[in-house]
Amino acid sequence: MTKIRFLPFEVTVEAREGETVLHAAMRAGVHINASCGGAGVCNKCRVFVEEGQVIGESLPEGGYKACTLIPETDLVIRVPVESHLDRRALLRAPKRLASSWIEAAERARAVDIEPAVRKFFLELPPPDLSDNIPDLRRLKRGLKEILGQEPEAEWSLLKRLPYVLREKDFKVTASLYDHPERRIPVILNIEAGDTAQNHLAVAVDIGTTTLCAELIDLNSGQILAETSDYNPQISYGEDVISRIEFARREKGLEILSQKVRERISGLIEELCHKAGVETSKISLVSLAGNSVMTHLFLGLEPRFLREDPYVPVAAFYPPVPAAELGLPGASGAVVEFAPCVASYVGGDIVAGVVAAGFFEEDPLTLFIDIGTNGEIVVGNKDFLACAACSAGPAFEGGGIKYGMRATVGAIEAVHIDYETFEPMILTIGGKKPKGICGSGIIALMANLFLSGLVDRSGKYRRDLDHPRLREGRDGWEYVLVWGEDSASGEDIVFTEADIDNLMRAKGAMFAGYQTLLESVGLSVEMVERVILAGNFGSYLDLEQAITIGLLPDLPRDRFYFIGNSSLRGARLSALSIKAREKMVAVARMMTHFELSAHPGYMDYYMSALFLPHTNLDLFPSVKERLEGGK
Amino acid sequence: MTKIRFLPFEVTVEAREGETVLHAAMRAGVHINASCGGAGVCNKCRVFVEEGQVIGESLPEGGYKACTLIPETDLVIRVPVESHLDRRALLRAPKRLASSWIEAAERARAVDIEPAVRKFFLELPPPDLSDNIPDLRRLKRGLKEILGQEPEAEWSLLKRLPYVLREKDFKVTASLYDHPERRIPVILNIEAGDTAQNHLAVAVDIGTTTLCAELIDLNSGQILAETSDYNPQISYGEDVISRIEFARREKGLEILSQKVRERISGLIEELCHKAGVETSKISLVSLAGNSVMTHLFLGLEPRFLREDPYVPVAAFYPPVPAAELGLPGASGAVVEFAPCVASYVGGDIVAGVVAAGFFEEDPLTLFIDIGTNGEIVVGNKDFLACAACSAGPAFEGGGIKYGMRATVGAIEAVHIDYETFEPMILTIGGKKPKGICGSGIIALMANLFLSGLVDRSGKYRRDLDHPRLREGRDGWEYVLVWGEDSASGEDIVFTEADIDNLMRAKGAMFAGYQTLLESVGLSVEMVERVILAGNFGSYLDLEQAITIGLLPDLPRDRFYFIGNSSLRGARLSALSIKAREKMVAVARMMTHFELSAHPGYMDYYMSALFLPHTNLDLFPSVKERLEGGK
Ligand code: FES
Ligand code: FES
Repeated sequence: MTKIRFLPFEVTVEAREGETVLHAAMRAGVHINASCGGAGVCNKCRVFVEEGQVIGESLPEGGYKACTLIPETDLVIRVPVESHLDRRALLRAPKRLASSWIEAAERARAVDIEPAVRKFFLELPPPDLSDNIPDLRRLKRGLKEILGQEPEAEWSLLKRLPYVLREKDFKVTASLYDHPERRIPVILNIEAGDTAQNHLAVAVDIGTTTLCAELIDLNSGQILAETSDYNPQISYGEDVISRIEFARREKGLEILSQKVRERISGLIEELCHKAGVETSKISLVSLAGNSVMTHLFLGLEPRFLREDPYVPVAAFYPPVPAAELGLPGASGAVVEFAPCVASYVGGDIVAGVVAAGFFEEDPLTLFIDIGTNGEIVVGNKDFLACAACSAGPAFEGGGIKYGMRATVGAIEAVHIDYETFEPMILTIGGKKPKGICGSGIIALMANLFLSGLVDRSGKYRRDLDHPRLREGRDGWEYVLVWGEDSASGEDIVFTEADIDNLMRAKGAMFAGYQTLLESVGLSVEMVERVILAGNFGSYLDLEQAITIGLLPDLPRDRFYFIGNSSLRGARLSALSIKAREKMVAVARMMTHFELSAHPGYMDYYMSALFLPHTNLDLFPSVKERLEGGK
Repeated sequence: MTKIRFLPFEVTVEAREGETVLHAAMRAGVHINASCGGAGVCNKCRVFVEEGQVIGESLPEGGYKACTLIPETDLVIRVPVESHLDRRALLRAPKRLASSWIEAAERARAVDIEPAVRKFFLELPPPDLSDNIPDLRRLKRGLKEILGQEPEAEWSLLKRLPYVLREKDFKVTASLYDHPERRIPVILNIEAGDTAQNHLAVAVDIGTTTLCAELIDLNSGQILAETSDYNPQISYGEDVISRIEFARREKGLEILSQKVRERISGLIEELCHKAGVETSKISLVSLAGNSVMTHLFLGLEPRFLREDPYVPVAAFYPPVPAAELGLPGASGAVVEFAPCVASYVGGDIVAGVVAAGFFEEDPLTLFIDIGTNGEIVVGNKDFLACAACSAGPAFEGGGIKYGMRATVGAIEAVHIDYETFEPMILTIGGKKPKGICGSGIIALMANLFLSGLVDRSGKYRRDLDHPRLREGRDGWEYVLVWGEDSASGEDIVFTEADIDNLMRAKGAMFAGYQTLLESVGLSVEMVERVILAGNFGSYLDLEQAITIGLLPDLPRDRFYFIGNSSLRGARLSALSIKAREKMVAVARMMTHFELSAHPGYMDYYMSALFLPHTNLDLFPSVKERLEGGK
């Protein structure tokens, strides 16, 4: 790892493998003007290499484009005087802390590999006239010696039984399933010979946007392959509401169900291909998704989830034979589902809570999954309360004039120089900017606010004469990218209407924490740990999120990023019946609160429509910074 | 009911509805010469009506054809002197005794109607915001109030659940299934509104030759309709062995399985049509069949049933969804199977033993199902032993020159005048005789023996000069029907080779009783009750069967005819989980003996190849009659 020292700020940062000097500077809080997001076309990201060796494009007027510059050795880089240092450079990087905590916690929890499907190799005595009991009885007798009780068998097994038993002279491997509702195990499958070493499961997170899948070795607990893809239901509706609408059409539900099952089948084939194994060795598929995704996957009517009084068809789903759902796997393979709590608090959250593990610990924890349908859980080993929070699509770029999904060309990181008001931007894939994604929107908002371009009520400073601040067709706006540097040739702007939408989204989340905590007699300051779940959480900059009031202003070491906790929970459930039981326990234990039914919610919400909040005392570190900045 | 007094014998018999004078005479043991089996063409069955009114054909020479004569009032009938009385006229009719015993026993047992599928009408509270639990939870909560525990649900139910619940404002009827291997009930089906009164089951006996089915009302226990048909597998093999052979062909097993399921589906449709009900009200199908029939129905490999060491795939079959077997029924309807004991002692026998009920009583009972594959059970409440007996096809007309199945034109009853040696025959359907079926063969054998035409070793009297006794192409034979009276125009004869085959068949059965009884330390004389099961048993004449040594010579009031006990057992199992549990208990309790493995079997068999037996002391009443007849 090479070190980069930035002058004149005397800030040093370790460069990551393959990372450009521009990216390292953004991480370190060093402002470098960068208008094309790292596409190498604006030529504004000039820096000088004072020491060390680099690869990159030099500029005719001297210096290099920081967005092309890769260190070969330790570097000393001088940023031209037009750029300035931000205090953020001194902040810790909580994401790394978080992951190590989570990994440790997971290691601690994953010690006992005890999957719901177990494989046993049996050397049964071949029948003779003195012992000519039926094949099924012979198999059950052999299994009883191991299990201490006789397992149940389904008739589909009987068809194959006589052939498989005789294939390798009554040496067989049986797959036993621990059905969650029954007290006796079920024989799922038998294979000739000893196949106990080939024992696989798949964990899938069915997100509204993204499907993430892992192939798991049930003997070692290792992840053999990972993959992900878009949820193909997107073609029929971006969000859950529009999919529920589509499901009401003739065959609509069938199409949505079919599409997502097919895509997941494809992902499973892909996982097995990557790992060089056969799908016929998969005994268990563990799925986690929100209530709507789970309903659609199973082909269950979703409309009552969103119609008052918001009733799911089921919250605890029985296991389903993989073959009935068209998924590949061993003969008899079973699909299990993370249980839901309510219409808007689904199996993804329950799986996430199990993965995070705080429901077994003392510290009062706030578990947050930020998104269009945000979810909040608060609790510890004594109680769990949850609520769904309809934040709107701003965090996914929706309702924002130049908002977009986090795909190539989206501005994902922004810094504004507090004196020149010039932006530094980074795009995903280092392509010319097309628009701004969620994390970019939050970064932009935080920077506009801290630089003083926007006041606490979310209005642009009318008194400032700056070319980037102007009254456009849609009211006042800040020009983040000039047309000459953007992909479309149009200016990319951020309007006061965009600010309003973002404030409503973050206000809904914050009012949600407050309301839920108040519902259980607590308040935000009492929270001892905040766990940020979900994809969005992983790309969030903690300081920026606190600055705009999206996250509570608590000591930074109380925050943890857990990533795709839904997938982690699904994996834990595949690996251990204890984890599966915990999911049931968590879903049962969790009390669901309807935020809109709480009398105080509207007041909390209105108070949160400020930057960071009407009550600045709730955000002491932001208050201090604002005062310090004055 | 009209009475018929036969002169000069002074024998009076009650005529049955629609019965001819000839049939009544046969029943009463009154001999009337009848050569065309009642077809009205031989004109030999002349009788004179001395008193009363009749409908029938008169003969030119005076008198009437007895085979056409139906009484309108009480009659006095004079039989011309050429006919004589037989002692059999004084015998009791044990079949009527038997059926009343069985009916009483069945009434006593069938008091508790407690089927495995129960229906419950629920008026669930519709959801509101204060009670918006999932649909499935609402249903389970309602059922828990009734059952005291939460039932299990399969995912297929979930698809229909939200619609059915809302169809009649959360008033629904749930069908709960008591799965034999699980400790919690399963929700099979729900229907909108109150449908608890429509609650049906079907019981089916899958015979090798015949399928018999009943439609049962699970609320009242009443049989709503009955039907039967040939087992369509006959086209692919007459007996179980040839069907096992056919199953080895490409797709053979699939065809056999498919055919019988289709025919049973047709029978179920027919039953519902007859009763004017919908198949969708059938929750349960209860099947009983021998091991091969059950294997073939389920599509399970049958070949190991007949290959040493004779191993069934399973003896206890798990319940199977009717839809997976292509049978009509309610959504979620279940098919259950009577358990088997061994390869040649199947679910039909287990069901039969449960229907007969002797396994719960004190008397030592011999339960016999006579047929190509005869089955013998001996026991009482303390023990049950069983054996299969390969008697060969003689009882079904196989291996007998003019033997045939019991269909129209078969001679089913025979009497021979001990002085004239002229036969009196009755055919099924009153058509010209085509051949002799099982009951006719036994009647003929008994008459040939008692009349002295055949000696104890089964040889015709060589010293007698009678046109009906002759040396034909196949050795010595008795002409039962002259060509002029037969359907084909050929003489119908009964050869010494036929007698040999019949002796081997009855000898195998009798040696079977002796061997099985000896295996458990008992002997034939100790038997306190004999129950004759199966179709063949119903048509058997008790005296004739004892005379030839097919049945043991015990006091006649120890014999009972139970009819199709397999179907009765299947019905009891559908009506009551107690009966279903009894089937399991009986199958577990029954010890299976391999007759051919017993060292004494061959001696017993050789000794039984006499009429009635080498040891005449085993047949005291026959001995007495033979001595009395001298
Ligand atoms: S050229 Fe480097 S950011 Fe534009
Ligand atoms: S005519 Fe009556 S039996 Fe032949």
